[in-house]
Amino acid sequence: MKVSEKLRKDTGHIWEKIFEHPFVVELYNGSLPIEKFKFYILQDYNYLVDAIKNFAVIASRVDSVDVMKEVVQVVHLEAVSEFNEYEKLLNKLGYKIEDAMNIESLPVNVSYRSFLIATSSLKSYQEAIASVLPCFWSYGEIAKYHEKKLSKNSNSIYVDWASVYLSDDYLNLVTRIKNIVDAGGKGFPYGKLKDIFMTASRYEYMYWDSVYNMDKWPV
Amino acid sequence: MKVSEKLRKDTGHIWEKIFEHPFVVELYNGSLPIEKFKFYILQDYNYLVDAIKNFAVIASRVDSVDVMKEVVQVVHLEAVSEFNEYEKLLNKLGYKIEDAMNIESLPVNVSYRSFLIATSSLKSYQEAIASVLPCFWSYGEIAKYHEKKLSKNSNSIYVDWASVYLSDDYLNLVTRIKNIVDAGGKGFPYGKLKDIFMTASRYEYMYWDSVYNMDKWPV
Amino acid sequence: MKVSEKLRKDTGHIWEKIFEHPFVVELYNGSLPIEKFKFYILQDYNYLVDAIKNFAVIASRVDSVDVMKEVVQVVHLEAVSEFNEYEKLLNKLGYKIEDAMNIESLPVNVSYRSFLIATSSLKSYQEAIASVLPCFWSYGEIAKYHEKKLSKNSNSIYVDWASVYLSDDYLNLVTRIKNIVDAGGKGFPYGKLKDIFMTASRYEYMYWDSVYNMDKWPV
Amino acid sequence: MKVSEKLRKDTGHIWEKIFEHPFVVELYNGSLPIEKFKFYILQDYNYLVDAIKNFAVIASRVDSVDVMKEVVQVVHLEAVSEFNEYEKLLNKLGYKIEDAMNIESLPVNVSYRSFLIATSSLKSYQEAIASVLPCFWSYGEIAKYHEKKLSKNSNSIYVDWASVYLSDDYLNLVTRIKNIVDAGGKGFPYGKLKDIFMTASRYEYMYWDSVYNMDKWPV
Repeated sequence: MKVSEKLRKDTGHIWEKIFEHPFVVELYNGSLPIEKFKFYILQDYNYLVDAIKNFAVIASRVDSVDVMKEVVQVVHLEAVSEFNEYEKLLNKLGYKIEDAMNIESLPVNVSYRSFLIATSSLKSYQEAIASVLPCFWSYGEIAKYHEKKLSKNSNSIYVDWASVYLSDDYLNLVTRIKNIVDAGGKGFPYGKLKDIFMTASRYEYMYWDSVYNMDKWPV
Repeated sequence: MKVSEKLRKDTGHIWEKIFEHPFVVELYNGSLPIEKFKFYILQDYNYLVDAIKNFAVIASRVDSVDVMKEVVQVVHLEAVSEFNEYEKLLNKLGYKIEDAMNIESLPVNVSYRSFLIATSSLKSYQEAIASVLPCFWSYGEIAKYHEKKLSKNSNSIYVDWASVYLSDDYLNLVTRIKNIVDAGGKGFPYGKLKDIFMTASRYEYMYWDSVYNMDKWPV
Repeated sequence: MKVSEKLRKDTGHIWEKIFEHPFVVELYNGSLPIEKFKFYILQDYNYLVDAIKNFAVIASRVDSVDVMKEVVQVVHLEAVSEFNEYEKLLNKLGYKIEDAMNIESLPVNVSYRSFLIATSSLKSYQEAIASVLPCFWSYGEIAKYHEKKLSKNSNSIYVDWASVYLSDDYLNLVTRIKNIVDAGGKGFPYGKLKDIFMTASRYEYMYWDSVYNMDKWPV
Repeated sequence: MKVSEKLRKDTGHIWEKIFEHPFVVELYNGSLPIEKFKFYILQDYNYLVDAIKNFAVIASRVDSVDVMKEVVQVVHLEAVSEFNEYEKLLNKLGYKIEDAMNIESLPVNVSYRSFLIATSSLKSYQEAIASVLPCFWSYGEIAKYHEKKLSKNSNSIYVDWASVYLSDDYLNLVTRIKNIVDAGGKGFPYGKLKDIFMTASRYEYMYWDSVYNMDKWPV
C-alpha cells in the first residue's frame, strides 16, 4: 500500500467526521446560512497567505530538483490563480480584499497555519509535505462524497465553489501532492508521517467546526 | 513607556482572566485536584522541548552578539536546569520521563508551540522575542498575585512548584527577556508586536483552561 | 537618492571591474574561447537551483503580501522559463541536463550560493533582497555597457545569450527587484544593506574570474 | 566502519594537506610570524559568532531530544567559555574585542561560514552535523600530529593556544560530535554526507591558506 493510502486509512475515523460535519453537509445541500459561509471565506485570506509561505519553505527544503519544481508550481498556482479566484468570490459576496485582510483570525486558523509552518520550518520535508496533504485531499474527497447533493443545491455561489474541487485540474493537483508524499515516504519512519497527517486532519475538522460555530477567541 | 509595559497594559484584560482562572487560583490555594496538576505537568514535556528549539531559532536570528549570548543562556538554562527540575517533579508525581514523552499533546499545546515556532521561523526576531515573553512574564506575575495564598497551601508539591516563580533567579530571567523586547522594540512597528504578544497571552489563557478541563482532541 | 541607487554608487569600483573583466569583454566581442563559456554554463546549473530555493526562502519571510506575490513570480520564472532556456542552451552546446547536474561546483559557486542562502535564512528579508540584486542588475548593466560589441560578434550563441539581458522582460524584472529593495530599505540601517550588496557584488566579480580561469578546488 | 571514520578516510588526501600546511606547521614549531597569527585570530571573531548561530539552527532541527540537549551544550560552550577564552587571547595579543568586531572578513571566512549556515538551514540535520565536524576534528588531529613540536616551541602564546586542542575536554567534545554524526548517519545516504564533509574539509584547508597569505578581497 502506498504511504498516502495508509495515512488515509489510518485516519479514516477523522475523515468520516469531516464528511459529516454540518458545515460541509449544509454547504453541499445548500442549506448553510450565508453568514456562516461569509465568515468562513473571510477567514480564508490569512490561511491562504500562510499556505503560500509554507509551500515556499517546503520548496526551499526539498532534496530533488524535480520535486522542487513541482512545489514551485503549487506555490505559484496559489499565489496567482487561487488568489484571483478568492478575490472574485469575495466580490460576489459583497466584500473587498481589504475586508478579508482586516479580519481577525480565529484561534483554529492561527493554530492550523502555525502548525503547518512549524512543521515545514523545523521538520523534514517529508513531514512538511504530509502536513499539507489533508487540506488538499479532503476538499477533493468531500466534493466527491457530496457531489450528488449539488444538483439540488439552489445556491449558485455554493455550487460554483464546490465545482472547483471536482475539476480535473484540482484532482490532478491532489495527485501530484500525494505523489510527493509517496516518493518521500519510502524508507521514512511511517509513525512520524502519521502523527503529522493525523494532526493536520484533526485541524481540518476543527476548522470546519469553528467556522460553523463562528467562534471567537475566549479572551 | 517601555514597549514591554505598553504590551502588558494593552493586554491587561487577558492577563486578568489568566490570574483568575480556576487552575491558577486552585493551584495557589492548594485545592486543585492532583489529577489536573498531573495532567498539566505531563503535557509540559513537549512544550518544553519545543520552547528550547524555539529559543535556538531566535538565537540564530538575532542581530546583536550580546543578545545572541543572552538567548543562548536561556536555551541552555531550559535544556539543562529546567529539564532536570522537570524530571524531578515528574518523579515526585510518580512518573518517569518516558511517561511524559509518550503523552499525546493537547490541541492547545500543539497550537501554542506551533505559533511560537512559526513566529520565530518566519517573522522578525523582535516579534519572536515578543511571542515568548507572555509565558515567562505571566508565570512571574501569577506568583506575585497569589503569593499570600501559599502560606495556607498544604500541598507541598504546589508550594515548591510556585516558589520557583517567586525566586530572584526567575524574576531576573523575566527582566532579561523584557529588556530584549524593549531594546528590539524601539523603532519597530508596535502593532505587529502587539498582535504577537496578544496572541501568545491568549494561548496562555487557553492552555490553563484546557489543562483544567483535561481536554482531548474533538476527533 | 533611492537605496538601490546609493548601493550601486557605493560599489561602483567593484562594478567597473566586473564590466572590464576579460570573461565579460570577450563574451560580448565574441573572442571568448568556447571552452570557457561551456565551463561557465555547466557551473550554472547548481547556482540556478539554489537561486530558486533562495527566492523561496525570501518569499516565505517577506512582510507584505504584495511583495510575497512578486517574489513568488520570480521563483516561478526561474523554476520554469529560466530552467527551460537553460536546458535549451545546454543542448545547443552539446550537453544534456544530466551533464550539468553531475558537474562539481567551483569553490566560488558553492561560496556565493551559500552566502545568498545564509543571508536569506538568518538575516532580514531586506538584506536578503539586497543580496540577490547585484546578480540580476549587473547582468543588465553588463549588457548595456557592451551592447555595441554585439553587432560585430560572430558567435551566435553568445549573441543570443546576451540579448536576453537587453530585453524589456529582463529589465522589467530588474526594476521589480530594485523596487522591493527600495521599499524595504526605507528606514532600514543602510550600513547592513551595503555590506550585503557589496559582498554579493564581489562574489559576482569572483565568479566571472573563476570561470575565466576554469578554477578547481585547491585540494 | 563508522560513518565518521569512512568520511575521514575518504577525505584523507585533503587532511594530509591541512596537516602539512605552512601555517599549521609554523604555528606548532613556533616559527609562524606573529602578524599572521594575529591576522588569523582577528578573523576568528565573526567565524565564532556564526558558528554559534549555526549550532543553534542545528539544535532547532534535530530529531532526538537527547541530541538536541547535546547540541545545546555545544552552543553554550562556544557562546560562553570559548568566547571568554577568545577575548583573553585577543588581550594577550594587544587587542580589544572591538578590534575583532570591526575587522572585515576574508572571502574564505564569509564563504565557509555561509556554507555551514546554508547547510544547516536548508539541508537535513545529518548533513548539518557532518558539515561542522571537520573543523572540530581537524583541530584535534592537527594537535596530535604536531604535538612533539610544541616542546621546542618558544612562543608561549602558540603553545597555550595549541594545548587546548590536546586537552581531554576538547577530545571529548570531538567525540560527542562524531557520535552524533555516526548515529544520524546510519541509514542516511552516505554520498550526501561525504559531499558535505569534503567541502567543509576543503574550506578548512583554504582558511589556513588564506590567513597564511593574509588575503584580501580581489576587488
